[in-house]
Amino acid sequence: MTDRNDAPSRRSLLSMIGVVAGSAAMYHAMTELGFAGESTFTGPPKLGAPPPGTSVLVLGAGIAGMVAAMELRDAGYKVQVLEYNGRAGGRNWSLYGGDTYTELGGFTQKVGFDPGQYINPGPWRLPYHHQGILHYVNRLNVALEPFTQVNYNAYVHSTTAFGGKPVRYREVQADFYGHVSELLSKSTKQGALDQAVSKQDQEILLAALKNWGALDGDYKYATGLEAGERRGYVKDPGGGLNSMPIAGKAIALPELLQSGLWTAIGAGLAYDMQSAIFQPKGGMGMIGKAFGKALEPLIQYSCKVVDIHQDEKGVTATYIDSEKGGTRKTATADWCVCTIPASVLSQIPMNVGAPMKAAINQLPYMAATKVGLQMKRRFWEEDDQIYGGQSYTDQPNTMIGYPMWDYFSKGKGVLLGAYNFGTPAFIAAAKPPEERIKDALEYGSKIHPQYKDEFECGVAVAWHRVPWTLGCAGFWTEESRAAHYDDLCAIDGRIVLAGEHASRIPAWQEGAVTSAVDAITRLHKKVMS
Amino acid sequence: MTDRNDAPSRRSLLSMIGVVAGSAAMYHAMTELGFAGESTFTGPPKLGAPPPGTSVLVLGAGIAGMVAAMELRDAGYKVQVLEYNGRAGGRNWSLYGGDTYTELGGFTQKVGFDPGQYINPGPWRLPYHHQGILHYVNRLNVALEPFTQVNYNAYVHSTTAFGGKPVRYREVQADFYGHVSELLSKSTKQGALDQAVSKQDQEILLAALKNWGALDGDYKYATGLEAGERRGYVKDPGGGLNSMPIAGKAIALPELLQSGLWTAIGAGLAYDMQSAIFQPKGGMGMIGKAFGKALEPLIQYSCKVVDIHQDEKGVTATYIDSEKGGTRKTATADWCVCTIPASVLSQIPMNVGAPMKAAINQLPYMAATKVGLQMKRRFWEEDDQIYGGQSYTDQPNTMIGYPMWDYFSKGKGVLLGAYNFGTPAFIAAAKPPEERIKDALEYGSKIHPQYKDEFECGVAVAWHRVPWTLGCAGFWTEESRAAHYDDLCAIDGRIVLAGEHASRIPAWQEGAVTSAVDAITRLHKKVMS
Repeated sequence: MTDRNDAPSRRSLLSMIGVVAGSAAMYHAMTELGFAGESTFTGPPKLGAPPPGTSVLVLGAGIAGMVAAMELRDAGYKVQVLEYNGRAGGRNWSLYGGDTYTELGGFTQKVGFDPGQYINPGPWRLPYHHQGILHYVNRLNVALEPFTQVNYNAYVHSTTAFGGKPVRYREVQADFYGHVSELLSKSTKQGALDQAVSKQDQEILLAALKNWGALDGDYKYATGLEAGERRGYVKDPGGGLNSMPIAGKAIALPELLQSGLWTAIGAGLAYDMQSAIFQPKGGMGMIGKAFGKALEPLIQYSCKVVDIHQDEKGVTATYIDSEKGGTRKTATADWCVCTIPASVLSQIPMNVGAPMKAAINQLPYMAATKVGLQMKRRFWEEDDQIYGGQSYTDQPNTMIGYPMWDYFSKGKGVLLGAYNFGTPAFIAAAKPPEERIKDALEYGSKIHPQYKDEFECGVAVAWHRVPWTLGCAGFWTEESRAAHYDDLCAIDGRIVLAGEHASRIPAWQEGAVTSAVDAITRLHKKVMS
Repeated sequence: MTDRNDAPSRRSLLSMIGVVAGSAAMYHAMTELGFAGESTFTGPPKLGAPPPGTSVLVLGAGIAGMVAAMELRDAGYKVQVLEYNGRAGGRNWSLYGGDTYTELGGFTQKVGFDPGQYINPGPWRLPYHHQGILHYVNRLNVALEPFTQVNYNAYVHSTTAFGGKPVRYREVQADFYGHVSELLSKSTKQGALDQAVSKQDQEILLAALKNWGALDGDYKYATGLEAGERRGYVKDPGGGLNSMPIAGKAIALPELLQSGLWTAIGAGLAYDMQSAIFQPKGGMGMIGKAFGKALEPLIQYSCKVVDIHQDEKGVTATYIDSEKGGTRKTATADWCVCTIPASVLSQIPMNVGAPMKAAINQLPYMAATKVGLQMKRRFWEEDDQIYGGQSYTDQPNTMIGYPMWDYFSKGKGVLLGAYNFGTPAFIAAAKPPEERIKDALEYGSKIHPQYKDEFECGVAVAWHRVPWTLGCAGFWTEESRAAHYDDLCAIDGRIVLAGEHASRIPAWQEGAVTSAVDAITRLHKKVMS
């Protein structure tokens, strides 16, 4: 199990944390993940009116379920939604001060954050090309603000490089670009590219490399003010007298390569991580809240579905109160859109055919952990001039995320103190929340020694312990997709599945939206045929 | 004159528009500009109290003048500020609907923008390391929001490449990185780097290039889903059935090099252009306004200084009403901080020594033009999914800047339709504002055909026609700095100069701040000695 899940950890890291990893298996991994992250959303579905009185039961009030419910309702369907939690949104979720969250194993955390402070345990980014989720965000009038993926002044850190001292993103990137440019310039000048590139194009290439890599007049990447203009200075230029800048020393190529820190500088290159990215003001959970409010009369909360049964006439879901248990109740409709995660759905009796059943049962879920840490003051801004973005580390916390709101405020702030996948996430999930927090503090203080003095309180979410998902997102491999994906998505009788797990944009809200749109479009066609 | 000013145009483009140009002269140019952009601000000056009653006359209520006035006042000086305009801020300036602006030559423009719409004719960015201006922004409680320097979905455009069709920034960058990676991988594998890089480091380098450049298993940058994960797709992945992505065709290396579009992909690499960058909510002019309010009793507006005279006892400035002319009045103080741009100051009689006089007289000012265009709807967001950032073109308008506020709003928006330097700016300045606007529309419609239907009204500012600066910023060369810079900054009797022109961060507000701090620190020392 560990080996199996160590693989997704690495892959997920790539697509979700936005780091270009040093592993040669990366792009193969991306293929397996289905090139996570993009969307074919071309506008909301235009379903047209169903036969009067046609009803649909939607299981789950996450993003997929609520998109389905909203569009089906708008088309004229009679819609009922059953939701396990006492709130709408599912993994679209922010934890605020005063919130209580209970994990499998009985760990209950009461969030101690101050008003206005929060953490997003689940999704936290809305890339510009995720036009599906952005459509609903705008329809629901959820206010957005920019999300900073790349911060040149944030740190990259390895316990085994530079004496364990963090360096700035800008330094590593400038030095990597500089060295690459110098090496390729050298190769060009020595004739190594004569077979591949025409002489005329070589001249343009040299000019391009010189500019892009900040090379000097001899096509060298050397410590000096040219490099300083990219990597920063020891002493910045200033005003008036004695204002000359002093350049820092560029990292030599062997040191840079061996440090492994170049793995971090792809943070903004992947399609999902490219600027512009947005986040809802006040937390990602604002989307789920707004959806819930818009669908208020349709959603029934605290319903734990324990059985799903279809016959020629319709679909019946049996459920109990998810908090109190007690009486079994039923909800019935002509059709059903089931957005319950496969990890949970595989444990619920449901009379679908063997192909869908096999598809559900085979799908493992990725492990992920997030830790939020409230600090007394925003020392990363005040002391380190880091305004938003992320620092990366080779420690198990993987990264530190800086809040991208209330910049320059004199008050408190909540750091994302850990966001990891795979093995580190499994190890974290095996510990009680307070130990996960303690670990995040230990790792983080290697980068920000201020942690010790400034920490106030924290919260930790290990997705394999979240009762209603048992993992962070469906984990497909190239092989499992080929064998099972179409069976998972195909309509079985009166039931169709939807959610990020039924998409090629796994672990993203856009997957949930596009999956829901596709599922109800096909369902409506079946209804009308 | 044209040749002389063609040079700064190119250089200014680099540091101010944030494009890495294709010219090999670039870094030399940057040296001449003094590595524009960084700061040595380490906190506001701690001057200590002057002898009771000591007075300072500050000429100019731009950023430098107001920083000087505020700190001198706080230290206990008697401060008076004379300002040419009827408002505070100087080049820190936003134009809103209803504003009127008259250029040299008599062109008066009444800005027709809707409420909430504006353009910043002068500075528009606050880089994270400009801690001086950020200090005053925070002291004055000016609210900030993120500025997007790099937008991967914005366009890069050449009239001579790809049939004049714009392509996306992400496509050009991914293809450039991919080809560079492939070429260097090839060189490495063929042994061309054996002298320069150890065998072991070559292995790490290959892994780094593969990941960073999105190479395939054979270290090739090929059209395919690996490249798509960087450059985007023809059809993005989606949800449910038939959701497979389709990759677009990568641009071949010769085509890419010859297009010249690679010059644009350094937009975010320079120290001044690196994320995180900020802008004041409601326009850059909010800083000047807040400063003016904080210094209200000290500033006398509409004062055109016509003579500056110092003797053993003090400094006297003679001024007239800048709008109505009329009576000559005088203001006298023990000392003077003069922030009048050298371009204007060179025309004002002032009894300073020959070295300062020569320094003032030799300093030319850069040409720059900005054009603001109000559009009926935000088609760049709605149709093109461009949220903030800039598109770049080889046409004389140089770029199109997208508003980085009110994202996703259904209302109007103001584009920065042109921002150019040097020759194109001089040509634009020679035309009446309405022709500059017409030109910007013509150029812009090559990238956004929607311009024709959506344009409502515009405003154009040519800095060489701005009566109170006669140019956008002081233009230093390496030679002129060596010969004159220290003389410009040195205290002459009772007079010290300050402003971006008296800094090594020309054309940036940070230059004005650090220059002012340095000038008053030295002035105070002289007062106390």
